[in-house]
Amino acid sequence: MARGTILLVGKKKIIEDRSELERLAPVMKAPLKRHVFVCTGKSCSKVGAGEVKAEFERILEAKGIRQGKESKGRNPMGEIVLTDCGSVGFCSIGPAVLVYPEGVWYAQVQPEDVREIVEEHLEKGNVVERLALIDLSTK
Amino acid sequence: MARGTILLVGKKKIIEDRSELERLAPVMKAPLKRHVFVCTGKSCSKVGAGEVKAEFERILEAKGIRQGKESKGRNPMGEIVLTDCGSVGFCSIGPAVLVYPEGVWYAQVQPEDVREIVEEHLEKGNVVERLALIDLSTK
Repeated sequence: MARGTILLVGKKKIIEDRSELERLAPVMKAPLKRHVFVCTGKSCSKVGAGEVKAEFERILEAKGIRQGKESKGRNPMGEIVLTDCGSVGFCSIGPAVLVYPEGVWYAQVQPEDVREIVEEHLEKGNVVERLALIDLSTK
Repeated sequence: MARGTILLVGKKKIIEDRSELERLAPVMKAPLKRHVFVCTGKSCSKVGAGEVKAEFERILEAKGIRQGKESKGRNPMGEIVLTDCGSVGFCSIGPAVLVYPEGVWYAQVQPEDVREIVEEHLEKGNVVERLALIDLSTK
């Protein structure tokens, strides 16, 4: 298989060929709609961010909408990306959950709030106002 | 000082008073424009994500535009939030850098690319096309 164009910049190989990049990163072909970040900083973790992230994983994977490898129970053509992130300054009001591209920052998210965020915001585009504190798009 | 309305939900105290929330999370008052994520997953870290993040820190803090605590050399009224994030599937083409709310995913970012991303994209809103592989807003 052709390896595509490779440029040498210092010691790094930079790949420029788009089909080669897509082969290496299948996420490029997914019809991504939203990216959810669960803060797993120290303070958020202490108040249950791990359980909140686990609940997102469980619900998104059951619905088949979490983008990722099939071998991990995810869907290569899923619309939702779920990752953790570092502290965003919601340390005293965590767990924090961020949804982009809207730029909505949710605070004090409990595992029992997750289904509503998934079904209202991620699937229908309706922000869950009772938990939303920052809307970056309107700033 | 009034502690604001506090509801008890199970064992958790949920704070509802907005001024109390702002006191606890001053980031709510910052004029946020963009959020930059540097992937610090295993693969990205192996190819220099730490150096890329450090370069963002250095440049954003020198410019005074990184939101955060003054005691950490940041600006409480900064426009840019910088955090790390978990793997997004760019493992073979890292380091990955994501900029929201645009939803631009940059691949193979080197420390020497960081100033261009800051000055073109973060400050002026011009995507650095040569490094951009995904534009979530157009998906």
